[in-house]
This record gives sequence, C-alpha cells and structure tokens, in this order.
Amino acid sequence: MNQIILLKNRPDGKPQLSDFEFTKEEKPQPQDGEVLLKSKYVSVDPYLRGRMRDVASYIDPFELNEPLQSNIIAEVVTSNNSNFNEGDFVNGMLKWKEFQVSDGKGLNKVDGDKASLSAYLGILGLTGLTAHISLDKIADLKKGETLLVSGASGAVGSTVGQIGKIKGCRVVGIAGSDEKLTLMKDKFGFDEGINYKTTKNMNEAVAKACPNGVDVYYDNVGGEILDAAMNNINKNGRVINCGAISLYNETGPQTGPRYEGIFVKKTVLMQGFLVRDHVKEFGPATQQLLEWLNDGKLTYSETIVDGFENIPQAFLDLFEGKNKGKMVVQIY
Amino acid sequence: MNQIILLKNRPDGKPQLSDFEFTKEEKPQPQDGEVLLKSKYVSVDPYLRGRMRDVASYIDPFELNEPLQSNIIAEVVTSNNSNFNEGDFVNGMLKWKEFQVSDGKGLNKVDGDKASLSAYLGILGLTGLTAHISLDKIADLKKGETLLVSGASGAVGSTVGQIGKIKGCRVVGIAGSDEKLTLMKDKFGFDEGINYKTTKNMNEAVAKACPNGVDVYYDNVGGEILDAAMNNINKNGRVINCGAISLYNETGPQTGPRYEGIFVKKTVLMQGFLVRDHVKEFGPATQQLLEWLNDGKLTYSETIVDGFENIPQAFLDLFEGKNKGKMVVQIY
Repeated sequence: MNQIILLKNRPDGKPQLSDFEFTKEEKPQPQDGEVLLKSKYVSVDPYLRGRMRDVASYIDPFELNEPLQSNIIAEVVTSNNSNFNEGDFVNGMLKWKEFQVSDGKGLNKVDGDKASLSAYLGILGLTGLTAHISLDKIADLKKGETLLVSGASGAVGSTVGQIGKIKGCRVVGIAGSDEKLTLMKDKFGFDEGINYKTTKNMNEAVAKACPNGVDVYYDNVGGEILDAAMNNINKNGRVINCGAISLYNETGPQTGPRYEGIFVKKTVLMQGFLVRDHVKEFGPATQQLLEWLNDGKLTYSETIVDGFENIPQAFLDLFEGKNKGKMVVQIY
Repeated sequence: MNQIILLKNRPDGKPQLSDFEFTKEEKPQPQDGEVLLKSKYVSVDPYLRGRMRDVASYIDPFELNEPLQSNIIAEVVTSNNSNFNEGDFVNGMLKWKEFQVSDGKGLNKVDGDKASLSAYLGILGLTGLTAHISLDKIADLKKGETLLVSGASGAVGSTVGQIGKIKGCRVVGIAGSDEKLTLMKDKFGFDEGINYKTTKNMNEAVAKACPNGVDVYYDNVGGEILDAAMNNINKNGRVINCGAISLYNETGPQTGPRYEGIFVKKTVLMQGFLVRDHVKEFGPATQQLLEWLNDGKLTYSETIVDGFENIPQAFLDLFEGKNKGKMVVQIY
C-alpha cells in the first residue's frame, strides 16, 4: 500500500496537524511512457501556506481531500519512458505520496555526484535560484554597500547573505535566536546579526548594525521588520520582497506605517520576486551556484527530518522557526 | 523698494497665510559679472511644503526669516554678465523677490517664441520632465496596458495621461471634481475618470474603470487612493511614487494596509522618483516634449494667478485642489 497526505481542512490562521489527513491507496503501476517514482527528499516551504487558501494567486490553490504537492527529489524505480533509467534521481513538483507515476513532464534529472541530493531542493534548487536571480535582477549590489537580510539563517536568507559577501557588501542578518546569529556569522560569514525576538526597538537595532544605512533590504518576513528597514533605508535603496512569513497566518487585514513619503524622498525601489517567473535563467544561475559551491564561496545548512509521516509537522515547524536553513524531509 | 516673501513659521499641519511674511528691502544692484532679474512667473509646487519642515531631505529645508524659493521665469533687466543680454528670459531656482541679482549660475535661457514663457515652468519644465522621464525609466508602458493616474488633472498627472495615450494605453484618471474629470477627458484624452470626492468605494470604482486591472499606477497623492490602486494591481504591475500630497500636511505617523503580500504575489515594482536625480536627461527629454507639443500630441492647462502678493495664497490653494494644471503666479 502507498501512503498519501491530503489537505483535509483549509487552515484558519496557523495550520495544525488536524488540517492534514494520512490515507492509503494501491501502489500505482506505470503505463507505457511513464515512470514509477519513489519520493526520497520532500521540500517543505512557507509559500505552501498560500496554496492552502481558496484564493486565486500566482499558483493554483490545493484542492480539499487531494494530495498536497511540493518539490520532491525522487528515485526512478521502474521506467517505461526512454528518457529515464531505473536508478535516476529527478526533481519535480510532485505529490505528497511515497510512490507515484509520472509521464516525465516537468521532471529534471539531478546528479548526486556533483552535490548531495537534498542540495537540489535548496542551494541548487528554488531557494538558491531565488537568492541569486532576485539579487541579480533587482538589487544590483555594489561593493561597499550595506545589505540587510531577514530570515537570515533560512535557506534563502543565508544564500543571499553569502552572495552579498561575494559582491563585497557589508551584510547584516536578522534572525530569531542567538544560535541562528552564531550560525550566520560563523558559517555564512555575515558581518553582524540582530535577534529580533530579544530586541525591543528594531529601528534602533538596525540603525546601530547599519551605521551607513541600508542600501538593500532583502525581505523574507514583512511586517515590523520591514518597517525597521524602511526607516533606515538610504537614498536609492532597493527592497526585494521575497516573502512575508510574518503575515501568512494572519486572517484579517494587516496595517502598518505608510511608506509613500519614504519612497519619494529616498527614491526607493521595492519589488516582489517569484522565482518561477524566471525559468529561462535557471540553467546559467544553477551553474553559477554550483561554481560558487565548488569554490567554497557558498555553503548551506539544512534541517533534515526523517520519515514520510513527519512531513506535516516539518511544515508546521517552519512557522515556529525550528529549521536552520532548508527544511527537508528524508524518506528511506 | 523690493518686495520679498519670507518663511515666518514652520507650519504645523496645513500651512496658513500667517506662516509667510512680506517685507521690503532696497532694490539690489548687480555687480560685475552679475545680472539683475525681475521675476515674471513664479512656480508654486506641493513639494515646497516639505522644505518648510526642519528635517533633512533630498533638498535643504527653508530657513526661518529667509526668502522662500521656487522655479521662477525672470527677465534680465540689467546685465553685467556677457552670457546674458537685457531682455533675455531665464529659468532658475530663485528667491521669492520681485527683483534679485544672480551671478548666472543655474540659470537657463528660455525662448518665448517656441512656447509661452509659463510653459517652461510646466509642460517644458520640471513637471513635464517628471512625467516623461519617470514613465520612461520606471513604467515601460506597453500598448494596450491600463495606466491609472491620480492627481490626473494636475500638471504632472495630465501630462502622464497624455503620454499614456501616445503609447497606446487605456488611461484612467482620478481627480476631485466633475469639472476636472471633464477637462481630463475632453482636453487631455483620458478614457475614463473617477471623482474620488463623490466615490464611496474607491476599490470598486477603480475595478469598474479598469476592467483589465491596473498595469501601471502613477501616484501623485498616496493614501487611500494608492490602496485602491494596489488592490487592483495586475501581475508585474508598476507603481511610480511621484508625490503623496494627501500626506504632506499630516503631523503624526500615518498607517494603512500592508502591501507585502501583494508585492510578492503580483511581483509588483514600486519606485519613488525625483526629477532632480535625472538632470542628464533633461536636454533630450525637453526636446521630446517640445516635439509632442508642436505636433499637437501634448497640451497643457495652467492656473495663472496675478500678482506677487498672491504667491502664498496660490501655494495654499494647491492643497485645496483649486488649481487646474500647473499653478503659476504672474508678476507684471
């Protein structure tokens, strides 16, 4: 029998384990042209929360009582498709099932010799691509500028900070524990860190950590941390909106300070970024990331949780900040 | 004797006549290398409100008990400078004085045969340049897109709308009276208008006037009209922050809805614009504007107030929306 995870309820506010349902089906059989895939590494990501709402967005909502989906590294266990051999590993937007069949569309082979398989969900996957392409398209980082990053010990944030160092910037990270701050500085080479959970006045903390102001703010969280960045933004500052995890579980309208005056006075540029809009750049961007990785200029951390049955809990833990770097569930 | 207008008080909230003081001095005498200028057309602009605050900004604050300044078209009445002849007209950032001397720095000659002198304060001056350069740099208007403009019957807004029509866009304007809406449509060729003062639900009004959503929102006002635009923004929408007149007289912090989620989902770009950052483009941009003007593709309206003594009231009237197009004070 084949295990599956369905969306049982659309969460109201913070998702809970009871919003997910485990069920079983007959193990599927691949037809002509199809492959049978066994899930090996499942990516859990904050943006999936958005797909649990029944609203139009950049990606279709999940259906109730249907399997959830995310990026998964799977092994080809049976192949009736000449493009794939048994034993190949592929990366694709796949269902939360132990086994599933695919006609091969949208699957990309990954090479476990060049990097670890889970890296293709993180530093060499959408998170690494997000960091690199968004900085390249929007930030235009210049040597000596100050780059402020929120969610800085996370998968995207830690890559953003390291690219900032490669470009010669002063890099300041914001995260939610002293342990994460240590990780940022010792492992990822950030110059300075701010623990937002123990900081009373974020405006002052950002001003102190960024004595020359903020040239680029890379926002993964939104809310009051964005406010503090805007209050310290420099003339011609750039803000990349990559995520707003602080608001994802909010149910009502959110309010905050108006920024219109700052936009005009400081000629600020703010731009939202979705990596899926930039598929054409994935090839060269992945090559660049792999090169930096092999040169030792980039490193990454990941939190690997064991077992298919723990996928929902791993997802919930994202909103508690329990991951360090990319959160991945490994299935044996 | 020479009349002067000084800043007497820094306004608290909305400026008042009592914040200005009229005084007199001896008529100045030009020295070697200097010219004596007589003010002919004085530009009054919302951004001057910002210079009345004692805070660092993109331009120095006005000093208390010193003359205010703005763009002025002046006549050279005496010249001890070989670059200028008596009878020349010049445009410069000059003091609110009937007569003043200048060493010629920062003065640009203007040709009253090519366009009316007051046009050099509007459609051929900073307002026209603001509209043209900001659209060119930030909006990248495409044929068939929907351009929404606030302050649409004003000097910048009416030029923005006309450039939108030149580029083949559907252009919708927001203004504060039915008379202004008629002006927008009949004189400037806007496709549709919204009177924000008689509209209860701006979100719905924008949705109705922009059935294909808003691709580019040109913001001159900020506040709740910006909110309505953001609620109707399309994927890859662009917002130009050119001004925020609705907030300029506010004394406390302003709050409004948070846009982080919209920025990410719709990959919105928002950018503040100050025309003074783009001086290098003034030459070709002025040529383009003059060409459109002479081809009949651009037109403009102006509210001309008579008399040096009415400069402060003309400035105050900007915040009541009493001007149609560029507000200029003519001095005989």
